[in-house]
Amino acid sequence: MTPSELHPLSTPFTLWLTGLSGAGKSTLANSLARASRVATRPIFVLDGDVLRAGLCRDLGFSASDRHENVRRVAEVARLMNEAGVTVACALISPMVADRAQARAIVGEHRFIEIHVATPLAACEARDPKGLYKRARAGELKQFTGISSVYEVPPNPALTLDTSTVGLGECVERVFDYLSTFDQAALDP
Amino acid sequence: MTPSELHPLSTPFTLWLTGLSGAGKSTLANSLARASRVATRPIFVLDGDVLRAGLCRDLGFSASDRHENVRRVAEVARLMNEAGVTVACALISPMVADRAQARAIVGEHRFIEIHVATPLAACEARDPKGLYKRARAGELKQFTGISSVYEVPPNPALTLDTSTVGLGECVERVFDYLSTFDQAALDP
Repeated sequence: MTPSELHPLSTPFTLWLTGLSGAGKSTLANSLARASRVATRPIFVLDGDVLRAGLCRDLGFSASDRHENVRRVAEVARLMNEAGVTVACALISPMVADRAQARAIVGEHRFIEIHVATPLAACEARDPKGLYKRARAGELKQFTGISSVYEVPPNPALTLDTSTVGLGECVERVFDYLSTFDQAALDP
Repeated sequence: MTPSELHPLSTPFTLWLTGLSGAGKSTLANSLARASRVATRPIFVLDGDVLRAGLCRDLGFSASDRHENVRRVAEVARLMNEAGVTVACALISPMVADRAQARAIVGEHRFIEIHVATPLAACEARDPKGLYKRARAGELKQFTGISSVYEVPPNPALTLDTSTVGLGECVERVFDYLSTFDQAALDP
């Protein structure tokens, strides 16, 4: 596909990338944004880690704070979509119910859930920020996959395991999905 | 000015409309958005009342909740600007310190403070939502201008009193200001 063919959709939408820490969510979101920059529809990244230093800086990692974190990101995604901006949200968002609320906030018709399904062992082997090491040492409480649950999405639009599929191929699969996405469903 | 001349600025920015309830902030913001829609740079409205039904639905009107309300709107304005979207924020934001924090979050170079300086008497005479009546009856606590302070901006970019200046003229003054705004200051 050429860049101009990447985004045939006329309605802004939200790509919601969920998965374990270290699964490759931010890397994939940023690659999608880079690939989209030359296209007619740029993708803006809402990164969970970045937002925790800004909009969500008052929140921790308790169940209720995680719930509120997901809720706020979904509210911003909705506002961005309303402003005409397509977004890729990269955040663990471990609970099925919280992601369902996010979908309801953003709008069923423009919410595309992508499970970045890199297995725990691969995420832990990468451990880009040394968080798994600290979690195993008991320094980090409520760490998803170690001391806190991750609920696998039962029915995501796409499932991508970045430990077996290269980044470029992942990007291509997302854009392939978008190119075949039923526009009628996005534009009800 | 023709619509295409309305937005000569290349950097997205944040118009921050502060003033009493009923001062005309939302009306002005929505008029700016309508006037900008046909131009090359659309303006998206972040309305305090609307956000209190979404992103800020967990917040009340205590001093700390108002502070958090202003902070979140500023964080969203910053994200919008980073995504290339110019915004008009319409919210009371009564405290100088909170607006200063908003300016710091959004970025000094792209924060344009507009005081919608309609006097209390005129706002109360309008009372579009019946809130002043309820505040005078003691039904609403911490109501800005009645039982809660409004700190006048000491040095806004623009001051507009919608009780003496018509809506169209207000819109024109904002666009006139923007057209003379030093682009170098916005794009440091």
